[in-house]
Amino acid sequence: MSEHSPVTAIPEDTCWEMLRAQEFGRLAFHLADEVHLVPINYAVDGRRRVVFRTAEGSKLLGLTMNADVAFEIDDFGEDEATSVVLRGRARQLEGHEEDEVEQLPLRPWVDTAKFNTIAIEVDEVTGRHFELRRPWLHMRPTTDD
Amino acid sequence: MSEHSPVTAIPEDTCWEMLRAQEFGRLAFHLADEVHLVPINYAVDGRRRVVFRTAEGSKLLGLTMNADVAFEIDDFGEDEATSVVLRGRARQLEGHEEDEVEQLPLRPWVDTAKFNTIAIEVDEVTGRHFELRRPWLHMRPTTDD
Repeated sequence: MSEHSPVTAIPEDTCWEMLRAQEFGRLAFHLADEVHLVPINYAVDGRRRVVFRTAEGSKLLGLTMNADVAFEIDDFGEDEATSVVLRGRARQLEGHEEDEVEQLPLRPWVDTAKFNTIAIEVDEVTGRHFELRRPWLHMRPTTDD
Repeated sequence: MSEHSPVTAIPEDTCWEMLRAQEFGRLAFHLADEVHLVPINYAVDGRRRVVFRTAEGSKLLGLTMNADVAFEIDDFGEDEATSVVLRGRARQLEGHEEDEVEQLPLRPWVDTAKFNTIAIEVDEVTGRHFELRRPWLHMRPTTDD
């Protein structure tokens, strides 16, 4: 008998489809000796890079000192969840490369000034699909709101 | 004239309410020189620690070598988003402390063996509320599904 696993790998091409379909993820990066985590909105460019904009500040400082980053998107419903994690190196785009980003659907969700364009050159993409077992969802009393 | 900012801080007590209300977040941790990122399901205990379970493997290995972690939950709709990020130190719970976790609503979403109980002792909690401006949501053609 083959055992059924509740966790399965998502093929890389499907991971990229999922990355293209969303525009909100979380970036983990080094800042000195610490690991930091921020939500970002992003786009995927034609070279399969994750591109985002940021203001001057801690995010960029961290990336300048140590380019190693991880990035995650996920989605979940009652019965299943998916998560795509990529690891790579972040670097600031300038000149011609930065201009090209204007063509991407990189739309700021929040109306604040962000002057720096960063691309994550991806080394590794991992996608996982989870079959959820959450019987308590069906046991919970409904809240009154 | 005072400028209206689309990003506002969420008070710490509200951050904890939000952390208690959810059970799915993302953990960023060191693994050797790299930063890694995984989705986890978690609970908050009475000491304002984030508690989760994990199988033996890379997650735990990373935490054993370097306890510094970051953890994030978020939520977003059409017009607003929230994100709570905490930073702290992860350590494995054993004996009495591990037994206490049985009392928490720490419910595994996925039916796989997870033998190690980890608590994040929180040093810092940051919550942000974002007012979103995404006019394109109202411009998109609807997809047929």
